Amino acid sequence: MGKEPLTKDRKEKTQPYYHLGAVTETERVLNKRLLDKITDPKTAAKLIENGMTVATSGFTPSGYPKEIPLALASRIKNDCEFSINLFTGASVGKELDSSLTKKNSISRRFPYQTNKEIRDKINQRRIHYEDIHLSQFTQEVRYGYFGNIDVAIIEAVKITPEGYIIPTTSVGATPTFCHLADNIIVEINTTKPLFLEGIHDIYLPNDPPDREPIPIMTPKDKIGTPYIKIDPNKIKAIVFSDKQDENIPFAPANQVSQDIAYHLISFLKKEVLQGRLPENLLPIQSGVGEVANAILKGLLDSPFKNLTLYSEVIQDSVLDLLDHRTIDFASSTSLTLSKEGFNKLYNNINKYKDQIVLRSQEISNHPEIIRRLGSIAINTAIEADIFGNVNSTNIMGTQMVNGIGGSGDFARNSSLSIFTTPSIAKDGHISTIVPMVSHVDHTEHDVKVIVTEQGLADLRGLSPIEKAESIIENCAHPSFKPQLRKYLTNGTKQVGHTPHILENALDWHINFLKSGSMKD
Amino acid sequence: MGKEPLTKDRKEKTQPYYHLGAVTETERVLNKRLLDKITDPKTAAKLIENGMTVATSGFTPSGYPKEIPLALASRIKNDCEFSINLFTGASVGKELDSSLTKKNSISRRFPYQTNKEIRDKINQRRIHYEDIHLSQFTQEVRYGYFGNIDVAIIEAVKITPEGYIIPTTSVGATPTFCHLADNIIVEINTTKPLFLEGIHDIYLPNDPPDREPIPIMTPKDKIGTPYIKIDPNKIKAIVFSDKQDENIPFAPANQVSQDIAYHLISFLKKEVLQGRLPENLLPIQSGVGEVANAILKGLLDSPFKNLTLYSEVIQDSVLDLLDHRTIDFASSTSLTLSKEGFNKLYNNINKYKDQIVLRSQEISNHPEIIRRLGSIAINTAIEADIFGNVNSTNIMGTQMVNGIGGSGDFARNSSLSIFTTPSIAKDGHISTIVPMVSHVDHTEHDVKVIVTEQGLADLRGLSPIEKAESIIENCAHPSFKPQLRKYLTNGTKQVGHTPHILENALDWHINFLKSGSMKD
Repeated sequence: MGKEPLTKDRKEKTQPYYHLGAVTETERVLNKRLLDKITDPKTAAKLIENGMTVATSGFTPSGYPKEIPLALASRIKNDCEFSINLFTGASVGKELDSSLTKKNSISRRFPYQTNKEIRDKINQRRIHYEDIHLSQFTQEVRYGYFGNIDVAIIEAVKITPEGYIIPTTSVGATPTFCHLADNIIVEINTTKPLFLEGIHDIYLPNDPPDREPIPIMTPKDKIGTPYIKIDPNKIKAIVFSDKQDENIPFAPANQVSQDIAYHLISFLKKEVLQGRLPENLLPIQSGVGEVANAILKGLLDSPFKNLTLYSEVIQDSVLDLLDHRTIDFASSTSLTLSKEGFNKLYNNINKYKDQIVLRSQEISNHPEIIRRLGSIAINTAIEADIFGNVNSTNIMGTQMVNGIGGSGDFARNSSLSIFTTPSIAKDGHISTIVPMVSHVDHTEHDVKVIVTEQGLADLRGLSPIEKAESIIENCAHPSFKPQLRKYLTNGTKQVGHTPHILENALDWHINFLKSGSMKD
Repeated sequence: MGKEPLTKDRKEKTQPYYHLGAVTETERVLNKRLLDKITDPKTAAKLIENGMTVATSGFTPSGYPKEIPLALASRIKNDCEFSINLFTGASVGKELDSSLTKKNSISRRFPYQTNKEIRDKINQRRIHYEDIHLSQFTQEVRYGYFGNIDVAIIEAVKITPEGYIIPTTSVGATPTFCHLADNIIVEINTTKPLFLEGIHDIYLPNDPPDREPIPIMTPKDKIGTPYIKIDPNKIKAIVFSDKQDENIPFAPANQVSQDIAYHLISFLKKEVLQGRLPENLLPIQSGVGEVANAILKGLLDSPFKNLTLYSEVIQDSVLDLLDHRTIDFASSTSLTLSKEGFNKLYNNINKYKDQIVLRSQEISNHPEIIRRLGSIAINTAIEADIFGNVNSTNIMGTQMVNGIGGSGDFARNSSLSIFTTPSIAKDGHISTIVPMVSHVDHTEHDVKVIVTEQGLADLRGLSPIEKAESIIENCAHPSFKPQLRKYLTNGTKQVGHTPHILENALDWHINFLKSGSMKD
């Protein structure tokens, strides 16, 4: 596989079209030796050959490369003539996942995605997808579990005089990819301001047996460097991009989400009253989306103050919480903001830089830190069963939605792991509370609280039969309660700690697949 | 609830029968003020009242109290007149679990058991049992998730001049129970030698938000004290016991176990050759039982040297490994030895004290340490499914066997999580490799390798369909392979990342329950 420097044949004396002029270049590429590596996306993409493993920046579509993957995709003429293994931090935008999927050019894709085109191909089993805990993924890449990384494509704000990389709006798995890749292509995004420098905290742990404690004691502790240290000789190409990240549309809170938030916040207040949580709680992890937004919005209207966030994403509502000092500090691996959110961030960057840090996903989601901080993990379920198991990835046990992401990292090491879901879906034809989930991502051992718009089930210290009673009575939708009670009553006619009737355990899903409804 | 000192009515001038003479007493109870608390089991047991929560020492039946629970049980005349919540470290012996279960006197029992009588009652749902990760249990007790602890009963080697406790052959959850309990009863076991002092390393972490890194960098690091620091005023009674722990019968390795061990050790050798593991591997965790014994025996005959163990139990074979320097050091929370094993330990205690440390289960099983060390976790499955999910607790999805124990603590934070199981059970009527497990304790995300006597499936980096092919071809018993292939082939006629046919997913279990065989 050709590894010769990409730019060696570039002989032009005059600057070709892709140069942006001396000012931009010299303020973005501060290492003079690397100026020679600036090239166009098409040329840079030639570094990527058939059969390679390519790893990119990007987390929950933020900070992923765009020009190189688009150039690569446009190079591929025919189906099946070309394929790569594609590793990312987490989900990336359509310029990467869609463009390559449309050319059937992804063979293997780890560890998380949220893209329609790629999801369809995953469910057709035309792309091999392993759904991996985000904190584990990077260490497993380093352990060599997934082979060599040929090329890393990294979106950057700039390259320092030493040749180090300042990432953009996410860190994700980038430090590990840069550390391991044979070659690095840097995509400098000129829409991402230079003043982002300083918001990142890059720390690459040693691997066993030489690993040491990670010295984070509070979400605001910085333990690393503001840049990703690399061997500058590995940078084989630099391109400029002015493409913006795919924006996640802002999800306004509906009544169901607000009710979920109400039950959850009431519960947290009670925990404080009973002395089980400090007044400013413990560091919160919360996902993205409607319910997460409603919860964060709910916190804004609550009496809680001086909270902290130790999470993997920062969405718009976090900025509001920081403004109101409901939250003092937010640690994350990604800024997943709307266009308005980014404008707000950039217009007040000096303030927010004191309140926000972006870490690698290995650290933002690290079991050691989550356990130490005693995190409160709030994640969404696709469905939960009456015994407290949660499915968060596979609809009807078979159809991959996105992946487990960081939910397992947080749920299994937190002090309090909470799952939220509306009690029904598909116009009431699906109950998200079922006798047996069709796929398990979070076991009964890792689920402490389930919340729907109907209410909240506190499962701590309960046996399976007590969990079932609590979940049915507190969380299930009234239209499905009789059916759930009947299942449980039938089960309890037999001996068994977890009184399932295996013949009927998956009937609800089977009925839905046949008739379009889980109703009897 | 009466909390007055138990011994205040003891007026005798002459020593009653339960005193063991000045020598034994003064070498075992070094705090002079506590000598007055020495009493008989019956009197001490009066501290335990109906409705209380009682927490005891003991882990994988080692170091649990015997005299007090027997005295308590003999006091209970009628069914249902008396019941307590019983918390332990892990499994305890029949003197505790059986004697109280026979009197229907346990209302709630956390977090693990291996006792026939109690298991039966759990499956009849007459005892509320929550199956909790062992490392999480103690912190959740401290967080107040399970209410107040009225009395702790702790087996000890001795009480120090300061009134602190030297535990016996396990540490388990004892430090936390002592820290929290209103009252403590100490059961000094005179069959456990005084020279055990010094083998324990007691460290009680702060709770969030004040938690700090746990400074263990290698299995041999000692970070605490050799005693459990308590307020001596909480000791309300001291009794003497010469009862031995219930012995676990030694499980000799049969051919199936040896074959599993062979595949596993071959795999580890290959990992070293390929540079994915150091020559002396990474700290090993291994359970108890036939397969675990065979694996440890296999290591003895292997070229591996200078290994370490960071585990929750030490069984007989570990002593042999230490003798041969196959293993340099073993960290655990419990000595689960046969009578011969204990004799060997005691006869060479000075040597073994340099090679063994006993920690609390919170530390032996701590996510932070397991992740830092990069542990190799080897645990047993009841059944595994073709997509890599593991059931380790509930037979046919309903009947509790023991519990998850520490397997989740290790599997989900290790660098390499391996599950072993013979490929068939019940004279070949049960396949332990099934289309869908009937209960999930370890998800596909946490299972990297499955080993049976047939072979080994390395699941790292595989998509569900690839995992299924690998597990069927490498791990399933030949008599079940055609049936498994048929299930998978039918599944792949449909779209779906995890190609289950829900109508048939649990048929194998249903068939077994109906006909006594999983065969078509």
